[in-house]
Amino acid sequence: MKIALLFGGESYEHEISIVSAITLKKVLNFELEFIFCDGDRNFYQIPEKSMKATHFSSKEYEKNRKLYLTNGGFFHKTLFGKFDDIKFDYILNLIHGADGEDGKIAGMLDFYNIKYVGPRLEGSILSFNKVLTKSFAKDLSVKVLEYEVFHGNKRDLEKLNFPIILKPARLGSSIGVSIVRGKKELDFALDKAYEFDNVVLAEPFIEGIKEYNLAGYRAKDGMRYSIIEAPLKGELLDFEKKYLDFSRSEGAIEANLSKDLVKKIREVFDKIYSPYFEGALIRCDFFIHEDEVILNEINPNPGSLAHYLFKDFNFEIENLISNLPINRKISVSYEYINSIKKAKGKARQG
Amino acid sequence: MKIALLFGGESYEHEISIVSAITLKKVLNFELEFIFCDGDRNFYQIPEKSMKATHFSSKEYEKNRKLYLTNGGFFHKTLFGKFDDIKFDYILNLIHGADGEDGKIAGMLDFYNIKYVGPRLEGSILSFNKVLTKSFAKDLSVKVLEYEVFHGNKRDLEKLNFPIILKPARLGSSIGVSIVRGKKELDFALDKAYEFDNVVLAEPFIEGIKEYNLAGYRAKDGMRYSIIEAPLKGELLDFEKKYLDFSRSEGAIEANLSKDLVKKIREVFDKIYSPYFEGALIRCDFFIHEDEVILNEINPNPGSLAHYLFKDFNFEIENLISNLPINRKISVSYEYINSIKKAKGKARQG
Repeated sequence: MKIALLFGGESYEHEISIVSAITLKKVLNFELEFIFCDGDRNFYQIPEKSMKATHFSSKEYEKNRKLYLTNGGFFHKTLFGKFDDIKFDYILNLIHGADGEDGKIAGMLDFYNIKYVGPRLEGSILSFNKVLTKSFAKDLSVKVLEYEVFHGNKRDLEKLNFPIILKPARLGSSIGVSIVRGKKELDFALDKAYEFDNVVLAEPFIEGIKEYNLAGYRAKDGMRYSIIEAPLKGELLDFEKKYLDFSRSEGAIEANLSKDLVKKIREVFDKIYSPYFEGALIRCDFFIHEDEVILNEINPNPGSLAHYLFKDFNFEIENLISNLPINRKISVSYEYINSIKKAKGKARQG
Repeated sequence: MKIALLFGGESYEHEISIVSAITLKKVLNFELEFIFCDGDRNFYQIPEKSMKATHFSSKEYEKNRKLYLTNGGFFHKTLFGKFDDIKFDYILNLIHGADGEDGKIAGMLDFYNIKYVGPRLEGSILSFNKVLTKSFAKDLSVKVLEYEVFHGNKRDLEKLNFPIILKPARLGSSIGVSIVRGKKELDFALDKAYEFDNVVLAEPFIEGIKEYNLAGYRAKDGMRYSIIEAPLKGELLDFEKKYLDFSRSEGAIEANLSKDLVKKIREVFDKIYSPYFEGALIRCDFFIHEDEVILNEINPNPGSLAHYLFKDFNFEIENLISNLPINRKISVSYEYINSIKKAKGKARQG
């Protein structure tokens, strides 16, 4: 089985994605292919020996073979104008944030019938847009923090009390996020968030609230879960900490939770996962407040796919691949146009 | 201004899309280009004189120039292996149902920075999946009919009473839809719906409920609305009726509603439209029950874009085009990788 790691993208997490791919190159035992999407959305086939961060920051990758995405896979052009295709069995979507988690890559891979591990269109939209995550969760009776949406001319809080945390609705990184402690700071923080998105989410900021991460996916024989980790964090996870977090190669430490609470967290995970996240290994971030499980975020393409939360990550990837959603082929028969043509023919004869 | 009509697609509404494009060829006064997506998702450039239904049903289109979608537009290959691009200013997405309304085409056009009229990713998902339409509307305090979702092993009604209407959640056509009047018929109807989708929506079936259609979009100076029409319908709108409906070239008749009710319908339309449907001309189908406005469906790419509901459709298209959403470019700076490289260099020196 040959897997192509797809990474990069026009995303604020472009560099994190490069780190993810370099990390998984060390972790995965499959035959690998490396497909890089640069900041201008050109695709390149990267030789294994060039899989170093500086190969990308120096733009050396531009000397690599340029690829084109079309029906059935990625191709490169030959001297004779012919397309030659790059062979692999599955794509592993490692593009974080925009492009990879907002549905663009999912839409293209589905359109071109390419088999891939990663979120499909619906899962992408429901996790990438933090406002839609809320309504989706509420409809499943999954608890979320209270929230308020800023859009258009709205400049004041109507429901929440300070302090709040303000986030651009669709960014998938901590850029543009502010903690706002009073009305005076709100204007500035809103302007900052609006620079990145015209929809902004406000939530109560709860000092020191504990977060728990659980990753998992659906295999043929049911749900598979990682250990639950309580990540150590500052107020906001900055870029450097994220980098260190994703690229670590040792395993994580399991959080000390009661059996009952682990069961509860897994039940919430299941509700969120099926059916819209099938085909992806996702990580959900939860808060626990008075033994209640509150959904914070869904990461449908977590950094390095949260390999450090699993004992045998190669097994999990193979297991997930054996249960990818199947796109139902719609056959176009021209039944209707043909029947009209026939009717017209008869009318002419009659 | 040159507009390319994009039509066809791997969709149950493939033929309806061809009818849409042929109809708009007659209605639109712009310079036009015709791009056909066949049932296997190959793109072709169709000469204006070949824009007849039988050109597609006979597969004659396969002799036309094949196109490839990539950064900035559609291209064809020349004899010398070079790409030559097809020139146009905007795409008008006329692919109905799957591909055109489910986010695949939106994702690809956004990825490749092609300007287009049509629903973006979020609007596509929120309208194409009838279950997600419900939770989206509820979160905006927009009334919807009661509903129940079938998925996995669920085979019995829990909340609703018969008669019900059963619909595959993601199809965008009346295929797989049944009216179920009792428990005995439920199993068969469920199996029929599951043939098309693993998520099925049940709603109460209300005999003779009146439907009202309103189309509209956001222009620079605010919302623009069509007249409200009360379409004549049988129990379900079949393919032939849809065909006649979309291809009609005369205007529609305005429904006889009180000023107050028109205002109410428009207010609901606004709530649904912004921000997720910006860039599209959509049609919403409403029920009116005891002066209450109930959302039935959102059509983000209505047949022939509901031109018959507008007086001057050419003006509306130009007006909409002047207010298309702008994709914010994310610049990839390699700031982080460069800063690590620098730090490493210093460590070596130190």
